[in-house]
Amino acid sequence: MNPRYLIVCAVCALLLTSCGRGTGIIRTPEPKRPAGQEDMIRFAAEPIADVGIGVVGLGMRGGDAVQRLSLVPGCHVAAVCDVETDRAEASLQYLEGRGVQACAYSGEEESYKALCEDPAVDLVYICTDWRHHVPVALYAMEHGKHVAIEVPSATSLEECWDLVNTSERTRRHCMILENCCYDFFELTALTMAQAGVFGEIIHAEGAYNHNLDPFWKEYWNNWRLEYNSGNRGDLYPTHGFGPVCQALDIHRGDRLTTLVSMDTDPFNGPKHARAAGMEGDFLAGDVTTTLLRTEKGKTILLEHDVMTPRPYSRMYQLVGTDGYAEKYPVQGVCLRTEGAESVDYQNLGGEKTYRGEALQELMARYPSPILTPELEATAKEVGGHGGMDFIMDYRLIYCLNNGLPLDMDVYDLAEWCCVAELSRISIENGGAPVAVPDFTRGAWNKVNGFSYAFAK
Amino acid sequence: MNPRYLIVCAVCALLLTSCGRGTGIIRTPEPKRPAGQEDMIRFAAEPIADVGIGVVGLGMRGGDAVQRLSLVPGCHVAAVCDVETDRAEASLQYLEGRGVQACAYSGEEESYKALCEDPAVDLVYICTDWRHHVPVALYAMEHGKHVAIEVPSATSLEECWDLVNTSERTRRHCMILENCCYDFFELTALTMAQAGVFGEIIHAEGAYNHNLDPFWKEYWNNWRLEYNSGNRGDLYPTHGFGPVCQALDIHRGDRLTTLVSMDTDPFNGPKHARAAGMEGDFLAGDVTTTLLRTEKGKTILLEHDVMTPRPYSRMYQLVGTDGYAEKYPVQGVCLRTEGAESVDYQNLGGEKTYRGEALQELMARYPSPILTPELEATAKEVGGHGGMDFIMDYRLIYCLNNGLPLDMDVYDLAEWCCVAELSRISIENGGAPVAVPDFTRGAWNKVNGFSYAFAK
Repeated sequence: MNPRYLIVCAVCALLLTSCGRGTGIIRTPEPKRPAGQEDMIRFAAEPIADVGIGVVGLGMRGGDAVQRLSLVPGCHVAAVCDVETDRAEASLQYLEGRGVQACAYSGEEESYKALCEDPAVDLVYICTDWRHHVPVALYAMEHGKHVAIEVPSATSLEECWDLVNTSERTRRHCMILENCCYDFFELTALTMAQAGVFGEIIHAEGAYNHNLDPFWKEYWNNWRLEYNSGNRGDLYPTHGFGPVCQALDIHRGDRLTTLVSMDTDPFNGPKHARAAGMEGDFLAGDVTTTLLRTEKGKTILLEHDVMTPRPYSRMYQLVGTDGYAEKYPVQGVCLRTEGAESVDYQNLGGEKTYRGEALQELMARYPSPILTPELEATAKEVGGHGGMDFIMDYRLIYCLNNGLPLDMDVYDLAEWCCVAELSRISIENGGAPVAVPDFTRGAWNKVNGFSYAFAK
Repeated sequence: MNPRYLIVCAVCALLLTSCGRGTGIIRTPEPKRPAGQEDMIRFAAEPIADVGIGVVGLGMRGGDAVQRLSLVPGCHVAAVCDVETDRAEASLQYLEGRGVQACAYSGEEESYKALCEDPAVDLVYICTDWRHHVPVALYAMEHGKHVAIEVPSATSLEECWDLVNTSERTRRHCMILENCCYDFFELTALTMAQAGVFGEIIHAEGAYNHNLDPFWKEYWNNWRLEYNSGNRGDLYPTHGFGPVCQALDIHRGDRLTTLVSMDTDPFNGPKHARAAGMEGDFLAGDVTTTLLRTEKGKTILLEHDVMTPRPYSRMYQLVGTDGYAEKYPVQGVCLRTEGAESVDYQNLGGEKTYRGEALQELMARYPSPILTPELEATAKEVGGHGGMDFIMDYRLIYCLNNGLPLDMDVYDLAEWCCVAELSRISIENGGAPVAVPDFTRGAWNKVNGFSYAFAK
């Protein structure tokens, strides 16, 4: 954790008369870029014809990844690693069954180091528990490997900066494995947004509202409940945040400036903890709500609730000057006039909402550029959260094969993950605004708009 | 605040020092209750057998009110008032057609004063434009009349305090005509909440998301667009806020403590203004989002968007420890286990969502205590936003007839309306937290839980 925050009064001129009207935006340290180090905007590495992948962490998520990556063209699983040897052996056996020879590293908490040093590995794919994401990623980049990290890829500002600096210095990719950027509704809505169907996107909403009642006991050694017990803030922001940041062109022409956050007291959390035999204070509020504002005057709402019984929702809502999209609880799109790409302000005819078949017909007109019919069919067949995991892996490998910038760079990772600590700081200070660091250090306006890279 | 944070602020060092904290919560003046003046918690007036009503403001909303009130038992429209004489005449004619003799006051901006002085009037029912709500209400209470005020009943903190102080001093009711508290889903969900179906309500959401594209030109002299042009903040919070405050027992065992707010820049607003021939800066952001926290650690999210094409939504979402309700975009209720009023934490079976017929069956088990089948049938026949306006009027008159506390008191009015100015203050100070005044001045905990009064 960072030891000091600067509190800077930004708007003294607006202060009213009474004591206590002083306002401060809390600023966390933004370390200067070391001399000679360059940003990673649109960074592309040398093409790798057949990407050798080392998968670290073979629990639920990592075991799935080994199987999925075995089906992605242009790569092979070259090595696997887990602290538990039987998991590593099981993955090896699975790969052998598919005729793939891989190395296994296991038995110790630092077994990942040998994997990171293995010359057969080009990309370290990290599926460990949250606490090990960054140590593995840093070690891998230091040893010349690209890295892709499950979410949350970093849990503190210090970790975010460490990844940014190490990626910039080593010139290695550091991608956040935010699969929700590849779900079908999000992909299509993003394509519609980029086509101007919604006008200018001015507000967006994302969430991780997921009742974990049946899941708490599934996590090894209760680590997830313990993490919630020991930490306050939006601890798992990226599933809702990532897709809307892409739609808002964050660090591609706009940037996040401030954040405020409030949480409820912990009501259900302590009950779960007691049921699991845990003692002591429980820090995470049941419901955490966060607002962010951007340089261009747009806003984002984020919600996090893993403690109450409610329908699963990532919200995914885009509010545009000419239209609107929402994914949960039922998919819908609303446009000022049917199919309008521009607005006639003399002809105020209200709006039309598309749901069901009408929505499918409308959205079919805006296929995502990354989704060929073959890829979509394969993704749905392979599965992995309905196919989005496979599409994510496919794009990662495709870009590495072709020496292209990845869809998400290390700044996406840092921006999406920093919400955890920034929201904690805001909450602990009564909802005070906190500045969002510019992890690009001035390069947020170099690229105009989010885009996918394709081979020529 | 965390003592490790370093406070650095050259400009405001003195102010910060005098306040003793850097991330100050902005506090607005909270005038002490004058000696001899008492709070209005559970205030009841003498019964009025046949309530004489004076309706002020006979535009769209007031004209409807005259017709609706003519159908409510226990009252009669005794007087009508509008600055425009033809409107007053039209209402008189309508009443004569129903065999009702009433007085008309019109022709001048201060014609309402004569109505407020009319001894035939017991209750002044105020449907003017927003700027005239409070002057009329204050004058009416000073002349011994109860008042009921359309929303927003007050547009500033000063107006809120004026209404509170005048209501307390004159011992007259001052009710906010928040019709959305009487819509069928809200009434039933409140009943379910009070029955414990959702456990403890810990978070709630409300909104006024209503595309006013087709409506802007309908407002006399463009007053509503001009109001948005000249004011920033959540200008119309009560439709979403009122119903969830009732579910959270605000000033009936809990109270609002802090608020933070962010808005987008104005994107569409200025386009509307230019189309209407208006000039100058446009202040209201297109989308305004506000978070509030309560003394008991609950949170409320409010949204306001009247500028973008999107489906109408007041959100109305209740998040409870054992269950969940949402009204928009499709009604739904979610419970941990079917019909569970308590939780077995050893039996984590997930949640069940009720929609459509299953939802209707579930909700039918929790009829609102204020809704007799006859009242519901009449309300739906009379109409007025689907019946809720009639139910609201019915309850108001019923309580006055029987000398009972009204469903909403002057503190509800102040709490729900103060969001407009408090959100502006927060926004103008970069999203800084603002304290919500305790309009009850210490009496927020005298009553345990929201309830309706009934004659014995």
